[in-house]
Amino acid sequence: MANSPTGDSVTDRLVRVLETFTPSRTVQTAAEIGRRSGLPRSSAHRIVGELIDAGLLERDDDRRIRIGMRLWELATRSSQALRLRQAALPAMERVQARIREHTQLAVLEQDEALFLERLSGPTSGSNVTRIAGRLPLHASSSGLVLLAYGTRDLQERMLAGRLPRLTAETIADPTALRRKLAEVRTLGHAVAQGSIELVSTGVAVPVRDETGTVVAALSVVLPRDAPTAAALDELHRGRREIERTLGVRS
Amino acid sequence: MANSPTGDSVTDRLVRVLETFTPSRTVQTAAEIGRRSGLPRSSAHRIVGELIDAGLLERDDDRRIRIGMRLWELATRSSQALRLRQAALPAMERVQARIREHTQLAVLEQDEALFLERLSGPTSGSNVTRIAGRLPLHASSSGLVLLAYGTRDLQERMLAGRLPRLTAETIADPTALRRKLAEVRTLGHAVAQGSIELVSTGVAVPVRDETGTVVAALSVVLPRDAPTAAALDELHRGRREIERTLGVRS
Repeated sequence: MANSPTGDSVTDRLVRVLETFTPSRTVQTAAEIGRRSGLPRSSAHRIVGELIDAGLLERDDDRRIRIGMRLWELATRSSQALRLRQAALPAMERVQARIREHTQLAVLEQDEALFLERLSGPTSGSNVTRIAGRLPLHASSSGLVLLAYGTRDLQERMLAGRLPRLTAETIADPTALRRKLAEVRTLGHAVAQGSIELVSTGVAVPVRDETGTVVAALSVVLPRDAPTAAALDELHRGRREIERTLGVRS
Repeated sequence: MANSPTGDSVTDRLVRVLETFTPSRTVQTAAEIGRRSGLPRSSAHRIVGELIDAGLLERDDDRRIRIGMRLWELATRSSQALRLRQAALPAMERVQARIREHTQLAVLEQDEALFLERLSGPTSGSNVTRIAGRLPLHASSSGLVLLAYGTRDLQERMLAGRLPRLTAETIADPTALRRKLAEVRTLGHAVAQGSIELVSTGVAVPVRDETGTVVAALSVVLPRDAPTAAALDELHRGRREIERTLGVRS
């Protein structure tokens, strides 16, 4: 496939176009896509045209451009994201019905926690998580679980890198983070108080597949000073249910 | 972007690779993808390699290839599919909890009904619908609603085309279909008994956005001879709730 003068492949350029769409930027003009993708204008224009012809992007009534249903369909119908989410949904609904706070499922993706599902009720508190959105591993309870049970490579890479503070309570020190990860493994769950938003506390447990590998984190987001015991009980009940669906023998 | 000798664009070839993945075919070898895409082997191989490098495809532990979380993320995070599904989920959960049968949300996509969501309970009956799967417009209750409220163009195209029989009760005659569509518009809902599977009956209602356009169908799948009145009441209550969330004034 023809590469550009800068050496990136056509697929790379296509990804750069798709990356300009975010949860808070769902429709754009062709010119905006071109500018935000950083691609030469003619190249961006051509890719957008091809993506529209293929149905992967769509024009709305104002001729602005958005992600097409066809792209969602192709990306979803055979995805692990759908398989995991389907395995988890009944358990998540029960956790949400009992705890009445945000109930979430996350996986590890490119050194971050990627959220596959979030269920919320009308009385649930503050929460920044979005479906198909991400949070840093060192700051979120889901991320701490995914990191604590991740590979040694991943852990060392994160501990050696930047640990940005999202709030005054985010763990930003490698020694403290190493201690926290050991604690998560000992307890079998992560509690992250105020580290994403000061007003809330995340509680997360690992979900394993039939090989014993941690494939996801199941979590709830509670008001900061809420007791965590009942949530933990429900999360463990929920993750056992998900693990049974994934074929884990108990 | 360089076109192939057959004149299809790189985007077209990329779509042909992605299309080889289906709900029942979630992992494949590179050779299988090459064969099923119908692309020259070297071309398929190069595209698969680029998609893996970009994270849009992933290798599993056996080096077989599957859809990547990154593709799901890019296709989902700003999609209309997610927006509609999020608007509909609380209402769908209530319908499912009360009727205790499959509860579904579908949109029109390339002359078929594309299902964005499906909620099912442990006691729900037979159902062929899958999330990100499709059903024909003339056979499913969701499809009949989307067709009845679709454009004249769409209706004439469908009425002039093939109307395949999925069961002995699928409407396969254009005159009968035209009559059925008029009935759907008069009643404000569609009942499709035995037309997808003989053992079940679909019941669907239209969901409108703030401009009055029908943007989705909300449906339940009942055992064939179950009464439909309670389901219809719940569906109308549910679709009003979704429409309020979408900004429709009642």
